[in-house]
Amino acid sequence: MNYSIALVPGDGIGPDVVAQAVDVLDAVADKYGHVFNYVELEAGGCAIDATGEPLPAETLEAAKQCDAVLLGAVGGPKWETLPGHLRPERALLGLRAGLGVYANLRPAALLPQLREACPIKDEVLRASNPKGEASFDLLIVRELTGGLYFGERGRSPDGSSAFDTETYSRSEIERVLRVGYRSAAVRRKKLCVVDKANVLESSRLWREVAAEVAKDYPDIETTYMYVDNCAMQLVRAPGQFDVIVTSNLFGDILSDEASVLTGSIGMLASASLGDSPEEEPKAGSSGGAKASGKRVTMGLYEPIHGSAPDIAGQDIANPLATILSAAMLLRYSFGLETEARAIESAVTATLDAGYRTRDIASRNGSAGAVNAAAGSTGAVGTANAAR
Amino acid sequence: MNYSIALVPGDGIGPDVVAQAVDVLDAVADKYGHVFNYVELEAGGCAIDATGEPLPAETLEAAKQCDAVLLGAVGGPKWETLPGHLRPERALLGLRAGLGVYANLRPAALLPQLREACPIKDEVLRASNPKGEASFDLLIVRELTGGLYFGERGRSPDGSSAFDTETYSRSEIERVLRVGYRSAAVRRKKLCVVDKANVLESSRLWREVAAEVAKDYPDIETTYMYVDNCAMQLVRAPGQFDVIVTSNLFGDILSDEASVLTGSIGMLASASLGDSPEEEPKAGSSGGAKASGKRVTMGLYEPIHGSAPDIAGQDIANPLATILSAAMLLRYSFGLETEARAIESAVTATLDAGYRTRDIASRNGSAGAVNAAAGSTGAVGTANAAR
Ligand SMILES: [Mg+2]
Ligand SMILES: [Mg+2]
Repeated sequence: MNYSIALVPGDGIGPDVVAQAVDVLDAVADKYGHVFNYVELEAGGCAIDATGEPLPAETLEAAKQCDAVLLGAVGGPKWETLPGHLRPERALLGLRAGLGVYANLRPAALLPQLREACPIKDEVLRASNPKGEASFDLLIVRELTGGLYFGERGRSPDGSSAFDTETYSRSEIERVLRVGYRSAAVRRKKLCVVDKANVLESSRLWREVAAEVAKDYPDIETTYMYVDNCAMQLVRAPGQFDVIVTSNLFGDILSDEASVLTGSIGMLASASLGDSPEEEPKAGSSGGAKASGKRVTMGLYEPIHGSAPDIAGQDIANPLATILSAAMLLRYSFGLETEARAIESAVTATLDAGYRTRDIASRNGSAGAVNAAAGSTGAVGTANAAR
Repeated sequence: MNYSIALVPGDGIGPDVVAQAVDVLDAVADKYGHVFNYVELEAGGCAIDATGEPLPAETLEAAKQCDAVLLGAVGGPKWETLPGHLRPERALLGLRAGLGVYANLRPAALLPQLREACPIKDEVLRASNPKGEASFDLLIVRELTGGLYFGERGRSPDGSSAFDTETYSRSEIERVLRVGYRSAAVRRKKLCVVDKANVLESSRLWREVAAEVAKDYPDIETTYMYVDNCAMQLVRAPGQFDVIVTSNLFGDILSDEASVLTGSIGMLASASLGDSPEEEPKAGSSGGAKASGKRVTMGLYEPIHGSAPDIAGQDIANPLATILSAAMLLRYSFGLETEARAIESAVTATLDAGYRTRDIASRNGSAGAVNAAAGSTGAVGTANAAR
């Protein structure tokens, strides 16, 4: 099948890691008989330098024409003194809004090879892991375009008080829950809704909608947890979780907490998804099946790490978070589960072979070598063959 | 000096642990020449059974006449089916509101004796500890009566959406910050304001007020951190924190996260404070200096653990969280810093001597013995003499 992928390398190490992910995608294309057409676009600081705007209209327009977007990182000290609307980070907000993505997927898995980097004791991890292993593998699905971060806000007329509003509609809650259920269906079939329903009205609406949506996924176990308890449980028993679905604010806090539990932020991928063609299109939503008839889900994929301009261009940045983001792209936008797992297995094989960038250890400091190991047709093929 | 202390034992293990804290307070009174007059009051499930109400008016009235309140725990399965306004937990909300307390102090310290219970690896703890020790000692000051938990909330007329409002006034922010600064002054003189000022208007007001209030405490270092980052930093480098001051919602999440880092919820005390007589009284605030002329700060002190009815009355509940709450009572309500430290040292000495209730280890299963060691005049005296 032919797919078009927008590449938005961005700033700092962004171009380094995106280039390496493209090598891996090319290896996948070769092995599995796909054609990936890349459209390279500018956004972030480099776009400010070139056009005066963090997200030029042409970038957004071209990205929307593609099947999915792979982004490196944006920003850096060079642009930090610019006014808010001209910051590189605005490009991210603009891309999310423009692409109609509303569900942010943040996997946090502790790979056995990187167990030493995890701040949690092995015996604590083992106690909650269903297989008794010192690892965990959870996915936080964070609502991305609603809630307290996008509600009405302001000051009282005399300036003596300030307010922000958490608002959620049934449709906003339903669509992100469905992303969570679809994710759980290809994982361990457990979904935990995290809220503060003992206090918040919006949380009570989340529970009402979840109770309805859950009926459509009878083979997935739905549970509920308060956010303060979840902040505890992530530390004391992370192995209990499969998929967590939660609001924008709670997801922001919990996904960052979960990421540090892995000890390896340089390894962590993310996806931001819009509507899926498998679902009935809903009023007011965008995305869905393309005119071409292909069943793709628009998504924006990026590593959670920043642009790290101090190490840009030196072949030392860890490419694995971006390579794993490319795997998510194949899984969630194109439905290519086998190909996604081939990349993930290749990453595992690369770590098993001892390759490390310096952020996760020190045996082979070359990101290129790590990438070569993960991305070579052989590695992807071998890893896949072993499955 | 004469002080009156309201005792609200409550339900389950509440009476067990409050009785043991009273033994320790009596030992302190003997040694330091104070008189503590106790007024025992009913609240929670036992009050429902006796009067039909979780917080009888006489309980609140009598508590307000005292200098401070020590509470055990309320609630239990027996009362869980009652309607919301008749639940034992309403007694807590009613006491907080009635006593005018607005700052919830949650210490989270990892005692070296309980290091094994901590889920975090020793080397991670050492890396952020100023002395290189595998421990941490932080205090979260949570705003308790404002923010998202008390703002306007509701549904849209058609029921399709729900909202909650985070609102903070300058005076609400200022008074809780001042509690934080006063706490930091008798600790390591570091205060971190945690918010989401890159997004929320209420958080920006917090920062404005903090910048003003900080000027009154020039010897205390003030820093700012976003809540999502703080959720990470608590796990990866808890030793960097002294006092954290934050909103009701963020404090709820972060204090629970911090508590699990200690690995010993049975050890954790809390205080809820109102205005201090050291501060100018502010419009609309309650509390402050009593008519007697004594300089006391009204406070509600309680362990963070629950009522654990399954182990009530068996002399196995860990009394140390309540004993440490009594130490906080002496420090924050009566300004008896030496006496508070004597109790804390006695608790340390008790653990050093190997006494444990079964929730934190297993060498001596008797809460009475733990208490006897902590509370005997000798232990308090010895611990104090050693300082
Ligand atoms: Mg974040
Ligand atoms: Mg809580």
